[in-house]
Amino acid sequence: MNKAVEFDQYEVGYDIPASVGMDQKDIQTPCLVLDLDALERNIKKMGDWAKAHNMRHRVHGKMHKSVDVALLQEKLGGACGVCCQKVSEAEVFARGGIKDVLVSNQVRQPEKIDRLARIPKLGARAICCVDDVTNVADLSQAAERHGTEIECLVEIDCGAGRCGVTTTSAVVEIAKAIDAAKGLKFAGLQAYQGAMQHLDDYEERRAKIDIAVAMVKDAVDTLKTEGLDCDIVGGGGTGSYYFEGTSGVYNELQCGSYAFMDADYGRILDKEGKRIDQGEWENALFLLTSVMSHAKAEKAIVDAGLKAQSVDSGLPKIYGRDDVEYVKCSDEHGVVADPDQVLSINEKLWLVPGHCDPTCNVHDWYVGVRAGKVETLWPVSARGKAY
Amino acid sequence: MNKAVEFDQYEVGYDIPASVGMDQKDIQTPCLVLDLDALERNIKKMGDWAKAHNMRHRVHGKMHKSVDVALLQEKLGGACGVCCQKVSEAEVFARGGIKDVLVSNQVRQPEKIDRLARIPKLGARAICCVDDVTNVADLSQAAERHGTEIECLVEIDCGAGRCGVTTTSAVVEIAKAIDAAKGLKFAGLQAYQGAMQHLDDYEERRAKIDIAVAMVKDAVDTLKTEGLDCDIVGGGGTGSYYFEGTSGVYNELQCGSYAFMDADYGRILDKEGKRIDQGEWENALFLLTSVMSHAKAEKAIVDAGLKAQSVDSGLPKIYGRDDVEYVKCSDEHGVVADPDQVLSINEKLWLVPGHCDPTCNVHDWYVGVRAGKVETLWPVSARGKAY
Repeated sequence: MNKAVEFDQYEVGYDIPASVGMDQKDIQTPCLVLDLDALERNIKKMGDWAKAHNMRHRVHGKMHKSVDVALLQEKLGGACGVCCQKVSEAEVFARGGIKDVLVSNQVRQPEKIDRLARIPKLGARAICCVDDVTNVADLSQAAERHGTEIECLVEIDCGAGRCGVTTTSAVVEIAKAIDAAKGLKFAGLQAYQGAMQHLDDYEERRAKIDIAVAMVKDAVDTLKTEGLDCDIVGGGGTGSYYFEGTSGVYNELQCGSYAFMDADYGRILDKEGKRIDQGEWENALFLLTSVMSHAKAEKAIVDAGLKAQSVDSGLPKIYGRDDVEYVKCSDEHGVVADPDQVLSINEKLWLVPGHCDPTCNVHDWYVGVRAGKVETLWPVSARGKAY
Repeated sequence: MNKAVEFDQYEVGYDIPASVGMDQKDIQTPCLVLDLDALERNIKKMGDWAKAHNMRHRVHGKMHKSVDVALLQEKLGGACGVCCQKVSEAEVFARGGIKDVLVSNQVRQPEKIDRLARIPKLGARAICCVDDVTNVADLSQAAERHGTEIECLVEIDCGAGRCGVTTTSAVVEIAKAIDAAKGLKFAGLQAYQGAMQHLDDYEERRAKIDIAVAMVKDAVDTLKTEGLDCDIVGGGGTGSYYFEGTSGVYNELQCGSYAFMDADYGRILDKEGKRIDQGEWENALFLLTSVMSHAKAEKAIVDAGLKAQSVDSGLPKIYGRDDVEYVKCSDEHGVVADPDQVLSINEKLWLVPGHCDPTCNVHDWYVGVRAGKVETLWPVSARGKAY
């Protein structure tokens, strides 16, 4: 028997959850589905905002890890390039045709530094962050070795509490070292306040960004007196872009989640006290799941558990339904409370994931749908690229 | 310029974290590392226990999703085959040479049922679970269509609160329907008490399994009076196998986590009140991570965040160190408290993941090490196979 003929491993359901042209009711679950209309509207809206406020938008590719989405963000949203968090991700975006790639993170391992230095050979601008003066020599040597240029931003920790320096004097010290190093170019500042993005209250978020802006402004001004201009002053996320974007200090936004939305971001409030998923942004990303067991009357078991999503920021919400609720998540199953026993076997539910970034990272495909049909399949090109 | 020559995408650090023969200090992070000695000892120990207690051991492939690990469990641990949770996983194991594959879960979507019915054509026994009599006709038709046989276990919910029926009368009804259906064979019972595996106290776990055993015994005995013998009575996990394995009712164990261990399982207590990772099982799975920033004196930032692990069952533990602690996890970073400022840039830490199953599912490779060298690279063969 020829196994290849009997059993094609590339059929739908083995390596891919759908095929182009398929009715959306036939999509295999669990899988990620993108509402292409909603996605395009989100991308265009943020692009228009950035343009109207004279800001560049360097979209955050770490969220979707997809070359196709990044290219759409360039096309419809006027994105100036991408940022991402790992060199292996940057390589995927550069290979995919993105010409301006920032690793908005530190690069310290020698092998990673070497690979970063080769990204310009793929036709892309390569930028990374530095928060330690001892990193400069390693970056410089790698750039020299490959005859390329690495642009460097000094990272300021403006409240996230992770990487980054916290004083202007440290910023200046590192910036000068970069400026003096062969093969490197001092390109500006990275100052993303990640810790405040998920505060519900708009004014609380503003207060945190006011602190960040003050820190960044002091650094920009001091660098200027030292003869160092910042080409890039980057930061800003879905919960704060209107603050950085009107600060007069930042010139690049780095939003990611706005394009897809998720349950955790969706609940934060805009200036008027309205959830941001109720007007500002549309849910474009869904985790499609099916009922696979209903042996107990009051609950249905669905096929999307911990292998299909990350629950670090809470359980998923069931889109468009208030009669049923996703109440528990285990490795392979979700428990959906169904008090009125309305769900039937194989019925599909559209989940809004709790947290889009790590949820996208467990899937291999985005199924793009429009008007009830599968229009496209996009690989999660940088999935698992954590190096 | 020839990009392929300038920049090999298959170099270490792009698609793979290591190469065979490499010193373990050169492994790219973050990645999963297996201590092969510890893994082999765990596998052999559980295999010996099962053999001594006259139990078959159908190892749970959903945990590691690796054909290589499953084959090692057959070779060193005498495993009779694997169980897994999805048809797409079962296909991977059958293609990889496992001859006896149980999908210990319901299979309801027509496309999935069709694929399940074709698994015997790959040379493997195909078994699935049923908890709804309306599933029987669909399974039967698919087996008939492909001229194969699907063996079916009736699933009993003996406390996990997910799939499965809860009464002997429901078991008998479904078993009779399976027995009468063309293309299907009634093969026994599936009764895994998943909810109690993580209770700390040994006697609390025993009490839960006593309930399960009583339910299962009643079903087995009643089926016998109906002329239906159970070839398989399967269940049991790392936190309970000694109960099912000495029950006189079960004949197959389905342990998974014992082979790798994790921080959440590790803390449960054995009969003597000792943590099971302090004698019963060894930590064989590690998430290797590196310090990438130490700009703040009191904390180091490492490169393993939510994209490299699942934190559903808690944060990872740092193996062999009590001077530093992994205290916070975000998308790309871990924050490690370093009160004595002992960590340096690029220093590696061996994390014991909070929960092995969904952590393995985000990685593409296992790096197998022995005596400080990389001995093997195993693909996480069924990674992302959630269909």
